[in-house]
Amino acid sequence: MATDYFANIPPIAFEGPDSTNELAYRFYDKDRVVLGKRMEDHLRFAACFWHTFCWPGSDVFGAGTFNRPWHRGANDAAAAADKRAVAFDFFTRLDIPFYAFHDVDVMAEAHNVAEHRRNFAEAVDDLERLQAASGRKLLWGTANMFGHPRFAAGAATNPDPEVFAFAAMQVRDAIEATHRLGGANYVLWGGREGYETLLNTNLGRELDNFGRFLSLVVAHKHKIGFTGAILIEPKPHEPTKHQYDFDTATVYGFLKRYGLENEVKVNIEANHATLSGHTFEHEIATAAALGIFGSIDANRGDPQNGWDTDQFPNSVPELTLAMVEILRAGGFTTGGFNFDAKVRRQSMAPVDLFHGHIGGIDTVARGLLNAAALIEDGRIDAARAERYAGWDGAFGQQVAGLDLAGIADLAVSSAIDPQPRSGQQERLENLVNRFV
Amino acid sequence: MATDYFANIPPIAFEGPDSTNELAYRFYDKDRVVLGKRMEDHLRFAACFWHTFCWPGSDVFGAGTFNRPWHRGANDAAAAADKRAVAFDFFTRLDIPFYAFHDVDVMAEAHNVAEHRRNFAEAVDDLERLQAASGRKLLWGTANMFGHPRFAAGAATNPDPEVFAFAAMQVRDAIEATHRLGGANYVLWGGREGYETLLNTNLGRELDNFGRFLSLVVAHKHKIGFTGAILIEPKPHEPTKHQYDFDTATVYGFLKRYGLENEVKVNIEANHATLSGHTFEHEIATAAALGIFGSIDANRGDPQNGWDTDQFPNSVPELTLAMVEILRAGGFTTGGFNFDAKVRRQSMAPVDLFHGHIGGIDTVARGLLNAAALIEDGRIDAARAERYAGWDGAFGQQVAGLDLAGIADLAVSSAIDPQPRSGQQERLENLVNRFV
Amino acid sequence: MATDYFANIPPIAFEGPDSTNELAYRFYDKDRVVLGKRMEDHLRFAACFWHTFCWPGSDVFGAGTFNRPWHRGANDAAAAADKRAVAFDFFTRLDIPFYAFHDVDVMAEAHNVAEHRRNFAEAVDDLERLQAASGRKLLWGTANMFGHPRFAAGAATNPDPEVFAFAAMQVRDAIEATHRLGGANYVLWGGREGYETLLNTNLGRELDNFGRFLSLVVAHKHKIGFTGAILIEPKPHEPTKHQYDFDTATVYGFLKRYGLENEVKVNIEANHATLSGHTFEHEIATAAALGIFGSIDANRGDPQNGWDTDQFPNSVPELTLAMVEILRAGGFTTGGFNFDAKVRRQSMAPVDLFHGHIGGIDTVARGLLNAAALIEDGRIDAARAERYAGWDGAFGQQVAGLDLAGIADLAVSSAIDPQPRSGQQERLENLVNRFV
Amino acid sequence: MATDYFANIPPIAFEGPDSTNELAYRFYDKDRVVLGKRMEDHLRFAACFWHTFCWPGSDVFGAGTFNRPWHRGANDAAAAADKRAVAFDFFTRLDIPFYAFHDVDVMAEAHNVAEHRRNFAEAVDDLERLQAASGRKLLWGTANMFGHPRFAAGAATNPDPEVFAFAAMQVRDAIEATHRLGGANYVLWGGREGYETLLNTNLGRELDNFGRFLSLVVAHKHKIGFTGAILIEPKPHEPTKHQYDFDTATVYGFLKRYGLENEVKVNIEANHATLSGHTFEHEIATAAALGIFGSIDANRGDPQNGWDTDQFPNSVPELTLAMVEILRAGGFTTGGFNFDAKVRRQSMAPVDLFHGHIGGIDTVARGLLNAAALIEDGRIDAARAERYAGWDGAFGQQVAGLDLAGIADLAVSSAIDPQPRSGQQERLENLVNRFV
Repeated sequence: MATDYFANIPPIAFEGPDSTNELAYRFYDKDRVVLGKRMEDHLRFAACFWHTFCWPGSDVFGAGTFNRPWHRGANDAAAAADKRAVAFDFFTRLDIPFYAFHDVDVMAEAHNVAEHRRNFAEAVDDLERLQAASGRKLLWGTANMFGHPRFAAGAATNPDPEVFAFAAMQVRDAIEATHRLGGANYVLWGGREGYETLLNTNLGRELDNFGRFLSLVVAHKHKIGFTGAILIEPKPHEPTKHQYDFDTATVYGFLKRYGLENEVKVNIEANHATLSGHTFEHEIATAAALGIFGSIDANRGDPQNGWDTDQFPNSVPELTLAMVEILRAGGFTTGGFNFDAKVRRQSMAPVDLFHGHIGGIDTVARGLLNAAALIEDGRIDAARAERYAGWDGAFGQQVAGLDLAGIADLAVSSAIDPQPRSGQQERLENLVNRFV
Repeated sequence: MATDYFANIPPIAFEGPDSTNELAYRFYDKDRVVLGKRMEDHLRFAACFWHTFCWPGSDVFGAGTFNRPWHRGANDAAAAADKRAVAFDFFTRLDIPFYAFHDVDVMAEAHNVAEHRRNFAEAVDDLERLQAASGRKLLWGTANMFGHPRFAAGAATNPDPEVFAFAAMQVRDAIEATHRLGGANYVLWGGREGYETLLNTNLGRELDNFGRFLSLVVAHKHKIGFTGAILIEPKPHEPTKHQYDFDTATVYGFLKRYGLENEVKVNIEANHATLSGHTFEHEIATAAALGIFGSIDANRGDPQNGWDTDQFPNSVPELTLAMVEILRAGGFTTGGFNFDAKVRRQSMAPVDLFHGHIGGIDTVARGLLNAAALIEDGRIDAARAERYAGWDGAFGQQVAGLDLAGIADLAVSSAIDPQPRSGQQERLENLVNRFV
Repeated sequence: MATDYFANIPPIAFEGPDSTNELAYRFYDKDRVVLGKRMEDHLRFAACFWHTFCWPGSDVFGAGTFNRPWHRGANDAAAAADKRAVAFDFFTRLDIPFYAFHDVDVMAEAHNVAEHRRNFAEAVDDLERLQAASGRKLLWGTANMFGHPRFAAGAATNPDPEVFAFAAMQVRDAIEATHRLGGANYVLWGGREGYETLLNTNLGRELDNFGRFLSLVVAHKHKIGFTGAILIEPKPHEPTKHQYDFDTATVYGFLKRYGLENEVKVNIEANHATLSGHTFEHEIATAAALGIFGSIDANRGDPQNGWDTDQFPNSVPELTLAMVEILRAGGFTTGGFNFDAKVRRQSMAPVDLFHGHIGGIDTVARGLLNAAALIEDGRIDAARAERYAGWDGAFGQQVAGLDLAGIADLAVSSAIDPQPRSGQQERLENLVNRFV
Repeated sequence: MATDYFANIPPIAFEGPDSTNELAYRFYDKDRVVLGKRMEDHLRFAACFWHTFCWPGSDVFGAGTFNRPWHRGANDAAAAADKRAVAFDFFTRLDIPFYAFHDVDVMAEAHNVAEHRRNFAEAVDDLERLQAASGRKLLWGTANMFGHPRFAAGAATNPDPEVFAFAAMQVRDAIEATHRLGGANYVLWGGREGYETLLNTNLGRELDNFGRFLSLVVAHKHKIGFTGAILIEPKPHEPTKHQYDFDTATVYGFLKRYGLENEVKVNIEANHATLSGHTFEHEIATAAALGIFGSIDANRGDPQNGWDTDQFPNSVPELTLAMVEILRAGGFTTGGFNFDAKVRRQSMAPVDLFHGHIGGIDTVARGLLNAAALIEDGRIDAARAERYAGWDGAFGQQVAGLDLAGIADLAVSSAIDPQPRSGQQERLENLVNRFV
């Protein structure tokens, strides 16, 4: 029976760096206090339904390899219930506090609006029971508005108002379910909010519809009293040629345009960051600087492959730098680390799901420990601060108080001849390597 | 003598598509009226000083190959005067209305603030004479705040306030010169406004300094009565690892943040667009949708090479699609097509400069003719409009007037089941190919 | 009934450039003689089964949108027969001479070896009848050894010898069917012949198995008397992280290593070329220079997207340059232009399949006409030849006959001081634009 | 005086992981024995002249920032002598055994053939003295055949035979100097051996000239009795649009074509590997599998930037995986780790050169220690071997002995139904993270 799926895998526990047990945490020690906070509270790990329980191991060139019991046959009520039960067993065995889902991930397949609402409502009832029984919590909920053929041309940006309405129906139910389940956030990933060709696209009109949809969601959130954060997830391309939520800076401009910059934050995915031409830590630092840092979808891409590979994070240096930026930003409030990551198509054994998550969790945990050590050491922050020290001096203060002509006159009268100074990049990179 | 440099090259004139003369325009017929406007007024071509008269044909791996007379020896007053004279002879032989320059392109090399101002002032006096004598006009001026070692860590975003002040001095003089020379625009390309590593960078502080600098420039423009446009030129990377003006959407967010979205527009470069993960026409369409379309730096990149190759435009289909977006946006007001393009390092013959510009000009001109024909044909616009027609129907009007719950209720009560409709991409692409 | 699928679409015929009929050829005039050969014989167009009749319009993020009659329900004998009948109706309406298929494209789904052979044999019987009835011919056959889960770790390079044997079984049947159907070529695309991670991969062993498999296929070809060409199709990535047949130069080294360079040629796909960091024409020119040019999979990628988009070719300049290289290589012998291209997921109307192919065919046909004109004009070839003329002079002849020390001594004694000469790139690009 | 340049920097010594001295090695302990060999003998570190002593800190957008004493004024005999003296002082302070140079790096600038030979000969005399005095050795020599304008269109592949001859002159002298100085290898990086446009390029002719040149060099090597290795350095693009030595697999095919695969090996650069769409370890594994692994140019690129950034290696995980492949290949024979890396343009302080090299050396050293531990642990190798175990079984042995039809018949008679097995990628990645 499906709920026995992981029966032979013991609960995963912290055993320390020297443990040779491959099914244990070597670094993630949830109660260890780092910079004044428990690791569990710092990292707020979540596992996701879609990659881990819904995806059958298919890709563009081949059929699913996973053959989970609940993938055989139709996705009916029984299969959906099995899937939910196995998932909560998994979350519990991993001993992480959170999970995340799309509406269609957790429910039996529906063929019309009424069936959608009914099947989803049944699933939510069950999730509520499973949460209570397991002590697991919802990091965020969302609605899948990209998988069904009706969303081929987008959801909120679809040229057809009926699709906009269908999306509104899904989001209303999904945000209300998230609220009821005590979710900490509600996420919108604009899966097909973008275009394939400008030839058939009215860019301005689609952006306005997208802005309006988001405004409606924000208004509804307040109406129902949901106090979690609304998050947008940037991605530059894929599945569409151009995604409107290209990167964090683009999302910021979009939010400003529709007056939503104080209402909506970003859910940053590592693989989306690198596909958009940025480092993961750049996206975090940018969101922090712009005041819209929300949450993280933890994964990694392949630097040689130009698509979203959604692999589990395994680079300790990368996660160290990302954690430095998260700590500088004050850490998470409602957000957390959700594993939007999938085991490879060849990793079809049930235990591979554990290896993937354990590796990811320990990589992030090492990143936190390293980042905390680096910050406590203080040398990198000191070097950075020293670089800008001139702005605190007399000349800097003068420049800060003058208009363009005044500053230009000052430059002339002072006959300034500023000399370049070393940015010390290699030294700072060596310092980082002391902590990874 | 240098001013004889192009003596054996006749003025370039329109001779029509069947001309076999390689030193003639086959499509650019400046007085031909297209969609009610002369081609010259549509396209507002400019040639630039830097690539065409300053760059010696060097690259990262090798020394200059061009060996122009004014490159030999120091860039003293005589060499600078020769360069300016040859450049105006070139602009005149090409018979294009505009040119563009950085301060340091046109002046003798300076070693301190006073010398900079003096040498630049002399150059501007000469430019004024050359403009009057030749009838050529200034599309835009700018200041080079990236080439000198003092700008290694940026200009407006430099950690050192002295560099900020030096930049202010240069911009004050350059914008005032632009004003005096009747320039239609003033451009800021943030050559080193970005970072090499986050380890030594305070992103938020640098963005704030960048925003303040731009605000000061805008205030100064109004103070001196300059009525041209202030333009920012987006670029994602190079020379810095990350450039703050990544792309048009990023610039828009930046402008909104500092309240400058009605004061500043973008100067879009084709090669920068593609390096940032967008098509050229996407950047134009985005700028138009956001209300910040200003001007164009015409060139092309190499789709297989990951750096700024600044080749002359030669793709008629690409320019056709770009011109469609420009025409949809209402065409240029202050902007134009500036050739921010350089002949290859192996194209060291003087005549190669003509081949490059003639090819670029005719490619853009064909793009305009094709775009006008496509728009007059109307089929593509009609197909696009038809796609959104549902929003004008009863259901669309209802959706436009309800809140999220109202729309969701409507979806439920209507039991909608929207069906995907063909986006006709292949048909529309075939239609485009009728015009290129 | 499925075979009426295209009933309302008339046969596609040549109507000339001025035709306003969107369902006609404007440039592909099969009997027109170009450079002494009929266009049909130059271009040898084929349409493919997989993208056009098998793919349901799904992608990684969503379900199929096409909903063809034969996609509903199981792929049983009746559905497979319907699909074959509709496909031949399509080939005939397009009036192109060839088609191409994988074994599993044309047959009912099989669940074991015996069933595979039986279902495939039935399909081949039917294809033979359909060829005879329609006059269509087989450009190439192949076996799909990447879609089924058993091939998750490769076919010929699979660590499991049973999978190697399964692949041998499929290829034996597929090449014998290709022989029986009069196919002009047999293709091997190494869909999953590559690796996901070096950690579990013995690169040398896999390459040796791959070389052995190909040697076995070549031997079998000779044994059965098949006189068509064996073709390998390079691709750099996707689905695997690294594909062993990365590009044409890599395939050449592989063939040389296993002594197969006179037995096997390449089937070059445009989108694979650009994904590997090359232009399409580079791959053709390289194959020609190395003596392994075979056939073309016609499509295009999206320069901003890092995966295989398999769009229909629509760039006349790109196809012009590709045709120049094909003509320089002497044209096709057994090869041709197969449309390994798919209509977009939003192009779900049956007529979209026609728009896609008509656009592609006319683009290639224009490329041929342009290339022929360019070659007949002769200026580009003359400029190219002139560049190397020094090798025919006295100095060049001396250099050609000496050893290193002899040449070095000659350089010293001649006190040579070679001067760079213009490569005329801009002039040559302008010349190309006279023909596109 | 220039030779005091590093006077205030103490010799760099091993102080262990806990040292807080930023100018000490924490992991590179040259006499420590790892897998039976001293670290110094494993890694064979070299520093290079070009990036570290010749490059002035310029880039495409700006002038040099380094302002080293020997960069001021002309590169005359005195400046060249100063540079050589400072360089050997640097090599000695770093306490690494090797260095590397191009001819023009070490000599005074020359203006004709005779002067080139004279200036180079003087420099070689001095290098011989400096080697003797310092105990430093030459890892490899090479000739710069890409920087001077005469090489704009290539050296061995230049259309002009005079340039081919000039290159022969340089290589003859450079390889003889390398021989005299006891160099372990001679390297050819085909800086401009490639093309900018196929329009003016005869690809086949250039490849043949390139092959002939290399054959001449190999013959000369044997003639003079040089027993070091000849190495080619692959790179995909930059400075040319397409470099003929694209990657290791391409070079292999090239060597096979001209019968040189037993005479020439590859010098693999990490940044070139990633620019060509491969990982660094892929290039090493490929070279090892093809029998042409020679040496390493140690550096790293920026995954978000599309050009050769030549940064110092700082990723311990990346170097660990690279060292695993080097150790699997049996380690270096003549090769070593040469730092083809440059400090950033903003790192203009003399001490930055030390930070760069110390960081790189310690990163590689950690990679070696980690790789040795991983190999001694044995779990990853065991999992890899187990994957291929089927080939040693009865079925595998049968498959190995049959022809295609025999294997196909075996598949049929055995009614095989091979099941996919987990590739354990996540587990193996976690194992790697135990060692980094």
